[in-house]
Amino acid sequence: MAETSAHSLIGQSATQIDTPALVVDLDAMQRNLRRMQAFADTHGVRLRPHAKMHKSAWLAQAQMAAGAVGVCVQKVSEAERLLTLGVADVYVSNPLGSLQKYERLAACFRAVQAQKPQIAVAVDDLRQVQWLAAAWAAAGIAVPIAVLVEIDVGQQRCGVAPGDAAVPLVRAIAEQPTLRFAGLQAYHGRAQHLRGAADRRAAIEGALAAVRATTAALQAAGFAVPLVTGAGTGTFWHEATSGVYGELQAGSYLFMDADYAANQASPDQPAFEHALFVQTRVMSRQRSATDDRAVLDAGHKTHAIDSGLPTVWSGHSAAWAVSNGGDEHTVLRGPALPDLGDVVWLVPGHCDPTVNLHSHLIGVRGGLRDGVVERIITVDARGCVT
Amino acid sequence: MAETSAHSLIGQSATQIDTPALVVDLDAMQRNLRRMQAFADTHGVRLRPHAKMHKSAWLAQAQMAAGAVGVCVQKVSEAERLLTLGVADVYVSNPLGSLQKYERLAACFRAVQAQKPQIAVAVDDLRQVQWLAAAWAAAGIAVPIAVLVEIDVGQQRCGVAPGDAAVPLVRAIAEQPTLRFAGLQAYHGRAQHLRGAADRRAAIEGALAAVRATTAALQAAGFAVPLVTGAGTGTFWHEATSGVYGELQAGSYLFMDADYAANQASPDQPAFEHALFVQTRVMSRQRSATDDRAVLDAGHKTHAIDSGLPTVWSGHSAAWAVSNGGDEHTVLRGPALPDLGDVVWLVPGHCDPTVNLHSHLIGVRGGLRDGVVERIITVDARGCVT
Repeated sequence: MAETSAHSLIGQSATQIDTPALVVDLDAMQRNLRRMQAFADTHGVRLRPHAKMHKSAWLAQAQMAAGAVGVCVQKVSEAERLLTLGVADVYVSNPLGSLQKYERLAACFRAVQAQKPQIAVAVDDLRQVQWLAAAWAAAGIAVPIAVLVEIDVGQQRCGVAPGDAAVPLVRAIAEQPTLRFAGLQAYHGRAQHLRGAADRRAAIEGALAAVRATTAALQAAGFAVPLVTGAGTGTFWHEATSGVYGELQAGSYLFMDADYAANQASPDQPAFEHALFVQTRVMSRQRSATDDRAVLDAGHKTHAIDSGLPTVWSGHSAAWAVSNGGDEHTVLRGPALPDLGDVVWLVPGHCDPTVNLHSHLIGVRGGLRDGVVERIITVDARGCVT
Repeated sequence: MAETSAHSLIGQSATQIDTPALVVDLDAMQRNLRRMQAFADTHGVRLRPHAKMHKSAWLAQAQMAAGAVGVCVQKVSEAERLLTLGVADVYVSNPLGSLQKYERLAACFRAVQAQKPQIAVAVDDLRQVQWLAAAWAAAGIAVPIAVLVEIDVGQQRCGVAPGDAAVPLVRAIAEQPTLRFAGLQAYHGRAQHLRGAADRRAAIEGALAAVRATTAALQAAGFAVPLVTGAGTGTFWHEATSGVYGELQAGSYLFMDADYAANQASPDQPAFEHALFVQTRVMSRQRSATDDRAVLDAGHKTHAIDSGLPTVWSGHSAAWAVSNGGDEHTVLRGPALPDLGDVVWLVPGHCDPTVNLHSHLIGVRGGLRDGVVERIITVDARGCVT
């Protein structure tokens, strides 16, 4: 459905939505939003949710209105979109691979400078420091840009090794009048999806050791670390209570996907509710001597399956077995299967790439089955990969 | 990158493309296009490529200009988009889950009727026949719509069981003046991705037996089968030479992904070239005592991984090991790794959902490394899941 026609759904019964569609339970989402902000406030840490999850200016502003200091993004194109739409504080929590990317960031800052946005970016290579300084100087921007140095705290992806390797980077930043060293980017992505609560805790203890070693090396070289930022929905309570991290970057807590729900809960973690659903319909119902199945009209062009297949919403009376039907289908088997045309709600395995498949989310108030469409949420930075 | 700014790339060197981006080698693509059409022509079968793969009106029209009779789609919204953009013959090769979907199809036919389009749809349930007839009658369309009955030839997804189960459906179609029975939809999706050539052949022999049993049951009931349509890039030469199938629905042959390339080749199959690539850059290059890696700026928001990770383009001098870096990253390890900012081309695992992640494809002439951007190909039906 085109987004313009989606707006005509507002005020209608949720069951009228043409399928498949990505539906947000606004009540559950707002409880999640408040719960996470209250947790951050209680523990005296800043919340900077990762907007790569929802890619929506409206949701970013809702998070900031509730108390978040700003948002993270991974891509310059995401920063461009959100800054242009009035999101006032955006951090690109990633190093960038070319001078051109840093020039785009500078051009974007210039374009929205009148609104006095806060903007920051990560680096993990001396050449990026040079590119960034050159781009900022060429754009003639007087305000220094906040630069964070990414360290590898166990993710084995971007980031310099913990310890001394950060020193020359911070020194190079300090030497540039257009740059300001703002802290360490220290996100442990792998830790988020370890199923065992003790395994996640152990992984974050490793991250803390990596951060402490790096902070010590920087202090020995005469540099203070203003902020350590990181953490995700699978571990944030460990970082928040560590005395090391000052800012949390969790994003998925807002929608809560099936993969995060499959983690063994930790006793000290706040609980979140599923708030994002694939609303789908049975498009084929086949019974034969050898098989009995209901085929849904949503496949992995509707919900990402990188973190596993979707699960069936707990509001259905039966727990059907889900199997992968390819790009456009999902197959259910089990007792009391739904009939042709019946609506079925699925919980996507991974919310970030699922949201990115859609131009908009349909916000429902009053529950999935009895609710009313209240709002169409545009996925403003959908497909922004550059 | 927004599509408008993508058009400014035309005439520029391909290496200037901001990354990540989805790039089409137009020379390779056009060789694939001609090779498949020549194969269909030689074997006296019709070619109706699946446009769910490329979702592009321009590519659909290029296929039809070369001799294809029309295209398939899976979704009503895809049909709406392509018919509106002038694609003259569109078949929705799928049953639909509500009266509303058939009404949308009828409304779309009405809207473009002046261009005399050909339109067809599949069913696998008596209720769908009633819905379709009601929708066509309510729209007051004089031309009967072509209806195909889907049978399950081994996919275990949509479709009635082979044999007698198709008879009441064909009878119900025959009783409706607004409907015309046009044949059997008999696609074996699972067979496409069986690695062994003999396994694929055996699976298609099973499909042929299923079609023959159904045709015999229909003939016994007094119904001729005008057409059997199906087949994909992994098996089409078996269907084409079977004497049973009259139409091939292969789609991936045009771009040829890593998953299809991993199939054991059959001696009687025409070969296709990779024509779709993720153009990416190294955004982080880290060497430490324990690891040596290059991180690319493309993850599974840029290329679908449902059928496996992308592979490294054979034009690179080294065969690096690829590991999953999540939504926005891919990690390379191995000898002579590329440096920060270097361009790397990947071959996506599965072209259909990869294309669907992008608003446009960048068509390059003259090879990936030395080529020039010739054309921006809009993914017109991107995100059309309803």
